[in-house]
Formats: sequence, structure tokens, C-alpha cells
Amino acid sequence: MSDANTPDTPKGDDARDQLVELAEQFYDQFADGSVPKMTLPTRSKSNIEYDDDSDVWVYGDRTSTRSANSVRGARKLLKSIYTIDFLAQQLDEDRSSTLRELYYLSESWDEEEAQFNDQSESDKLVEDLEIVSGVKREDFHMRPEESGAKVMGPLRIREQTNRGDREIHCQDDVGQGGYQIPNNPDTIEFLDCDAEFVMCVETGGMRDRLVENGFDDEYDCLVVHLGGQPARATRRLTKRLHDELGLPITVFTDGDPWSYRIFGSVSYGSIKSAHLSEYLATPEAQFVGIRPQDIVDYDLPTDPLSDSDVNALESELEDPRFQSDFWTEQIELQLDIDKKAEQQALASRGLDFVTDTYLPERLDEMNVI
Amino acid sequence: MSDANTPDTPKGDDARDQLVELAEQFYDQFADGSVPKMTLPTRSKSNIEYDDDSDVWVYGDRTSTRSANSVRGARKLLKSIYTIDFLAQQLDEDRSSTLRELYYLSESWDEEEAQFNDQSESDKLVEDLEIVSGVKREDFHMRPEESGAKVMGPLRIREQTNRGDREIHCQDDVGQGGYQIPNNPDTIEFLDCDAEFVMCVETGGMRDRLVENGFDDEYDCLVVHLGGQPARATRRLTKRLHDELGLPITVFTDGDPWSYRIFGSVSYGSIKSAHLSEYLATPEAQFVGIRPQDIVDYDLPTDPLSDSDVNALESELEDPRFQSDFWTEQIELQLDIDKKAEQQALASRGLDFVTDTYLPERLDEMNVI
Repeated sequence: MSDANTPDTPKGDDARDQLVELAEQFYDQFADGSVPKMTLPTRSKSNIEYDDDSDVWVYGDRTSTRSANSVRGARKLLKSIYTIDFLAQQLDEDRSSTLRELYYLSESWDEEEAQFNDQSESDKLVEDLEIVSGVKREDFHMRPEESGAKVMGPLRIREQTNRGDREIHCQDDVGQGGYQIPNNPDTIEFLDCDAEFVMCVETGGMRDRLVENGFDDEYDCLVVHLGGQPARATRRLTKRLHDELGLPITVFTDGDPWSYRIFGSVSYGSIKSAHLSEYLATPEAQFVGIRPQDIVDYDLPTDPLSDSDVNALESELEDPRFQSDFWTEQIELQLDIDKKAEQQALASRGLDFVTDTYLPERLDEMNVI
Repeated sequence: MSDANTPDTPKGDDARDQLVELAEQFYDQFADGSVPKMTLPTRSKSNIEYDDDSDVWVYGDRTSTRSANSVRGARKLLKSIYTIDFLAQQLDEDRSSTLRELYYLSESWDEEEAQFNDQSESDKLVEDLEIVSGVKREDFHMRPEESGAKVMGPLRIREQTNRGDREIHCQDDVGQGGYQIPNNPDTIEFLDCDAEFVMCVETGGMRDRLVENGFDDEYDCLVVHLGGQPARATRRLTKRLHDELGLPITVFTDGDPWSYRIFGSVSYGSIKSAHLSEYLATPEAQFVGIRPQDIVDYDLPTDPLSDSDVNALESELEDPRFQSDFWTEQIELQLDIDKKAEQQALASRGLDFVTDTYLPERLDEMNVI
């Protein structure tokens, strides 16, 4: 069983050192008589590229520079210094905070020019610091606003909480609601795992159906609730389950373009967090359904595609992350039939159809079970 | 300590009997040679009234009748019969399903006229059946789509899950994420409680702040995350904590009209579910803040009110549920200063201000601690 503290990026003291080093660079630039500056990869769609080694999308070679040679640039660096100071102190005290708290907290800073004008500014700065320092936000102890989702299945974990360690079996020690993923899942150590694969489920209703029907038990499956667009914590845990425990990851969503994006964010990473793809994305994740072909094969109850659905599908046809025969075929079929279906639409064949027939057949085809 | 199965409304076999009795009424009406019908309270804002005994808002005396003397009415009764049949069978088999599953499942019914045209139709029918039978949706084993939120604090519970009972202490046996409330919190039995009061918190960021700062531990408080407009499960659990354990309920939200509605749904119930007020609403719940007066007193970072904020505040001034000196004064002050603030805005005075100063002072004023 692997260690919880797989040091993908620096933690604790190391994270603090990386931050302070950044501030020291500005100091040295001043001392040298040069204008302080910070260089970052350009964060746009045109500057993400597929990394063949890691099979994820990462930033390309284009860079942008923040220099103190303009008032605007100088103010940005000033804000960076104040933020680094706050983060270093937070790490010293082993505390944490949210992005929103950082934004509000800046109002208490003595230097008014360093205060943030809105939260998007402080959010972006923290992302910039992640990229430049190579330290993840979680390791700065910045908690996301959004909660991670919940897990049910044959896995025993140890979680380091701020009140001591807790050992929890994700079936035997939890209620029907399952184990709640903490904001920073790197505090989790995997102790014992009897699971054969992971199934990430988009909707709460389907998650509850699988749990009620005992799917996790019968198929030795870890059911991970995504709850729409998955939180960072959920994606991180999924990746660790794959990398450290060698579990196949499957994703089960509604059959519409927004759900394919949910699959994409689990498997390919997102443009906004391409610097974190290696930390969050699981390129080996497999899409279970609902596939447009399922709508046809199982004659599912459907809704017609809206204009925005059609646009989203067309944009996926162009998206480098969806360039495969499978996706091209499925998306073109969906545009052709002009229909979408929810995962719970499988209930039109009875409440147990999904666990007795649909999933076992599909997972068998995919060689997962 | 009270029993988990406080039979507020019939459960299991009783729920089934109530449903079947409804169907029998239709049968008897047929047998008598009269046109079958179903009578319901009128479900509109004009037909809710304050019940002095229970201190909650309930439906008034006006009623509407569904009769089979029109094709439309006959179809409604047919759908009711099919739904009752499905629910009775579900209860027989001790299974459960979601509202969305019911809607989709109707596509498998042999009688096409009984199938629902959209989910709002089946949702409404289930509510009607709740009202007429006096049985709650949860006791029909209809699970909500939305998950309940999570609890952290000195409480030990036993939850009946479909894989056996689980005993869980909501501090010692859970991770940082806390105990996940199940969809039907009436499966929970309270075993031991060292809590002195309950604090329902709107945002995840503030919930995490209280937990990180050990507020639940220091003040013997059950921190219940609302996560925006609270799920039925969360409101039900809150009510049970009040009624069965005698705990004062406090509600801590952002300082804007939408958050006052969140408080209202915990304390007064909603128009849509006025038939459930006695089951879900806790009229003794107290509002902690953020109050408009706090924005002034603590000079909090704010945003200006939008047009829809102003409209919502004005509508609250007219709302029978907000007719108190406290609310009138606060809402008028807010319209006057034209500002709103989030609970996390307290971070502008430091990350610990909320737990060291704001909450202790406010709760002391309110005689909660």
C-alpha cells in the first residue's frame, strides 16, 4: 500500500520555502538594480498542448511577463509579496483558509495598494503562484470553497484531521451517505482496498441507486459521487486511487455535452488548471455512458437538444481533447438524432435495469469486470 | 434520549395502508355509482396561514377538488392509482427511489394515459399524495435528489442503513468533512449528545472555518452545513435536534435577502411545503447574522444591492413570515445603506475574528451561550 504523503509537490516547510524563494528573487532583482519581474506560461487555449509522456494537457512554451516597469505591473508584484507573506505565515502556523477569505483578509492589510479589488484577482494570483512555485494550492493550505464529494466502497483509509488521525472503512464505518472527501485528499492514506475498480457517478440520484442496490458490494466497486462538475478534491482522490492503487477509473454521467465535459475534467484536465493536470487528471479514465448509442439501443426517454447543447457538441468536435474515433462517432450520432438523455432515464426499464443489466454488460465489454 | 422512530407520521406498513386506503376510496366511489374525486387544500400563497399552536405556517381551509367528471380529471386520478400501486409495491419490497426515477419509470407502465408528461407533474402528484394521505414522501420511500448536508459536533448517533446499523460519533468517527446526513434522517437515532446548541451555517467556507478553529469543540456546538437553500433532510434533522434533544437552533448566513429566505425555510417553512411545516420547520430557530446592522457596526466589505436584491427585500417586508420589529428594522436598514455582505467578509478582521469575537459576543447577547 502506498504512503499518503506521496510528495508530488513540496508540502509544509518545502511549500513555504518555495514561496519565500519567490519573494527572495524579487529582492535580489531589486538589489541588482534590475526591475523585478515574474515570468509565467501564457494561460490560454492556444497555449495548451498534449504531453505525450504524461498523456495530459499542459501549458506550452509561450510565456507572459509581469514586470514592475509599469504601475499596474508593480501593483501586481506588491500584491504577490503580501500574499506570499500571508501564505508563509499560514504555513508557519499550520492553518488554512479559503480563496474567498484571502480576498476579504486583504482588506486588513496596511498597504491599501496591495488589497484586491475583487476575488477573481486574488484567485488568479494564487493560481499564478502555484504555477511559478510549482506548489499546489492545497499545499499552501488554501482550501477550495466547494466540498469534495462522497465515496462508498470496500476501502479503508486513514485521514489526518486537525484533531488527530481517523481510520474509516468506506462501507462499514459510514452511513448511507458515505465517506465525505475532505478538502485536501492528500491527508488521506490508503490502508486496505478490496475494490476492483472505481465508478465516478454524476448525479446524486444515480449514486443513491447504486448504493441502494448494493452495486459497490456486489462488484467490489468504489462509487464516487461527482455531483456535477467535480471538485478538485474529488478529481485528486480519483487520480490517487488510480495511480497508487492501480484501480481502473470509470465515469458514468448523463448523455449530453455538459456531461462529456465532466468526463473530460476527470480524464483530460481543464484549460484553467492545465498546470495541475499531472496532479488532477486521470487520462486512463474510461467513459461508461450514457452514450448517444445507448439512447438508440435502449430507446431511452429523451429531451431534444437545445441550441446551446448543439453548440457545445460542435465545440467538442473541435476540441483537441475529444479527437478520437469513439467521440467523433458518438457526438455526430447525437447531433444526428438531436436527443439527449439523463442517466436516471434507465429507470424507464425498471429500477434495477442499471445495476442488473446496463452496467454489468457495459463494464464487461470494456473489460473492467 | 428519545427514540429514533418518533412516529410523527405513519411508517412502513402504515404508510402502505394509508395509500391503499386512498385507492379504496376511489373504488368505493365507483361502487356507489358516484364520480371518483380527491379533495386537496388549495396550495397558494393566499391559502397559507399562521398556526398559533404549532407556530408554523400551514394551509388554510380553502380546498380544490380533482374529479373524474372531465377527461383531464380522470387522467389525474388514473395517474394517482398507478403511482399508489408503484409506491405500495416499493414499500412491500422495502426499496426506495427518487422523484426523477418515478417520472422515468412511468414510461414502463402498460397504460400510456397513466404516464407522466414531465417531472413537474409526477413531483406534484407525490406532494398531493403526501397531503391527502398525511404520510410524508420519505415514508413512501421517495428519496430526494439533493443530498443532505453534513454535521460536525459532539453527538453520537445510530443510523439504520440498508446494510445494517452504524454507530457514529460526529467528531471522533468522521473525517474533516464531518458526518454526511442521509436522505432520510428519520433513520437516525440519537444516542449521546454533549452539544449545547446547533449552528446551521450557509456556506462551505464558513463551515470549514468553524471546524478548523474547533468552534464545535470549544462551545459544544453541532455545526450543520446548510449549503445554500437547505435540503429537506437537513431541515428535518435540525428540527429533530431541537424537538427531541431540546437544543437551541441558530442560523448563520450571508447578509442578503436570499440568505434571510434560507433562515426562513429553516424556521418558518415554505409555501410549497406548508403541509410539511410541522415536520420540517423549527419556529424557535434564531437568526445569528450577518445582520445589516453588522455591516455598519463592523464596517464589513460589501457589495451594492442589485435590483433583484431590492425587490426581494421589499417582498420580505410584505411577507407575513417576516413581520417582526427585528426583521422590519434590519430590512429597512439594509435598503437604506444599499449594501450586502457575505459571512466570510468577517475575515477582513482576521481569520479568527468570527470564532473569537463575533460569534461568542452575538451568542452571549442571544443567551445561547
